[in-house]
Amino acid sequence: MTTEQLINQIKIKKSFLTIGLDVDLNKIPKHLLETEDPIFEFNKAIIDATHHLCVAYKPNTAFYEAYGLKGWKALEKTITYLNNNYSEIFTIADAKRGDIGNTSTMYAKAFLEDLAFDSVTVAPYMGKDSVEPFLAFKNKHTILLALTSNQGAFDFQTKLIDGKEVYKQVLETSKNWENSENLMYVVGATKAEYLTEIRNIIPNSFLLVPGVGAQGGSLKEVCKYGMTENIGLLINSSRGIIYASNGVDFAEAAAESAKTLQQEMETILNAQ
Amino acid sequence: MTTEQLINQIKIKKSFLTIGLDVDLNKIPKHLLETEDPIFEFNKAIIDATHHLCVAYKPNTAFYEAYGLKGWKALEKTITYLNNNYSEIFTIADAKRGDIGNTSTMYAKAFLEDLAFDSVTVAPYMGKDSVEPFLAFKNKHTILLALTSNQGAFDFQTKLIDGKEVYKQVLETSKNWENSENLMYVVGATKAEYLTEIRNIIPNSFLLVPGVGAQGGSLKEVCKYGMTENIGLLINSSRGIIYASNGVDFAEAAAESAKTLQQEMETILNAQ
Repeated sequence: MTTEQLINQIKIKKSFLTIGLDVDLNKIPKHLLETEDPIFEFNKAIIDATHHLCVAYKPNTAFYEAYGLKGWKALEKTITYLNNNYSEIFTIADAKRGDIGNTSTMYAKAFLEDLAFDSVTVAPYMGKDSVEPFLAFKNKHTILLALTSNQGAFDFQTKLIDGKEVYKQVLETSKNWENSENLMYVVGATKAEYLTEIRNIIPNSFLLVPGVGAQGGSLKEVCKYGMTENIGLLINSSRGIIYASNGVDFAEAAAESAKTLQQEMETILNAQ
Repeated sequence: MTTEQLINQIKIKKSFLTIGLDVDLNKIPKHLLETEDPIFEFNKAIIDATHHLCVAYKPNTAFYEAYGLKGWKALEKTITYLNNNYSEIFTIADAKRGDIGNTSTMYAKAFLEDLAFDSVTVAPYMGKDSVEPFLAFKNKHTILLALTSNQGAFDFQTKLIDGKEVYKQVLETSKNWENSENLMYVVGATKAEYLTEIRNIIPNSFLLVPGVGAQGGSLKEVCKYGMTENIGLLINSSRGIIYASNGVDFAEAAAESAKTLQQEMETILNAQ
């Protein structure tokens, strides 16, 4: 999917919501555990109930790897279901990968070509040649970790290199990498006050923003400081939506919770 | 496996060699492609032929994920084969994972508990709470990326924070994390001259050292600057060993190549 198509979808749906598909078998409704593939059945129901309210889905690969082969099969089925039925949806493999060049190429092929996700999250620690193999895929997107939403972000990301925070060095350095037009960045909502300075460095790039809801970030604050003319934001919510209920009504409850966020977004977009 | 058991194995085998199982179907002998599970058959033959010459195997997960479900099945079969037949071998899931706390816990369970690897490589960018979930596993080891062997290491890892390189900040900061006795570190052999200063910060930790051979690092240099009383080194070689031949003699050729490195190591150990 191109960035233009994503922007169009945001305008059509009046939503820049991403739903995190972080499926934990201990948290999903009990009745699904009797089905052959509870993870996929859960995802399918959530997707069917919420696809008109969001523009993206983001399965975090940890939750699938935790179930071994069964988990990977569910991940494959989920992305195939999305690509076959809702091709207008932007898909994100939240994998946080990154390795030396030829190895990153293997990861990039796995997520962007074979599984055919639109994008994948990547860690910047190993530098340019660990990220460029992902950037080489046309009309695919590499979402680089910049400033994450967890407490550990303050261990290294906010430390100063030549008077500038590590995450800002990541933003500035990566702008010069080949095919950098395919870059987006992870910036946690719990640190909305940093967004003004981030926008000075990357005025137009899309930001994937976790941490709204369960982790305490404010949607309004993020939009105030981070939104661009072309929106430039994908706001992720995982637990707050997919675990809104663990009864038989889980999908409707998820849709209701997604709708609340979508309507806040619609208000913000209309005011823009 | 405990660190003491690993040190014992090094002394018994007179080897601190790690063999990287980075299986690429384009590079393995053609006759294996006709078997039901070429990746596993390749690994099994390599392991059977080399297990007495090395103390560790390190499959890089990228090479398995690249083959989807088939790849994950081969990874599961490989680690199970190792654990069932060669329990004295130290196993490393080269996964370079790392995420927010509850998500890192899922990765840690996947690799250290379910797949039952002895260790897993982890990226430090997201800080303490992204790494500690891995450290919580008893008699398991977290191998944190410090200074990697690729060119991109110079993009961020060697930049200065308060006059000290990022990778040194990673070493120093991580020493204070809970269960830090379960930490080992990745330090590339292509940068052997950095090892003296690294040893000043972490005098006793084991280092996993990629980059000997194909990437140009020197075994002697690494040992000169990095070896401790308890050895403290795991030297990885992947392509140089497993692709020593792509004929029907591939396993014997791999053993011969591994033996060359093992003998260099034996000489170094005897001189110590």
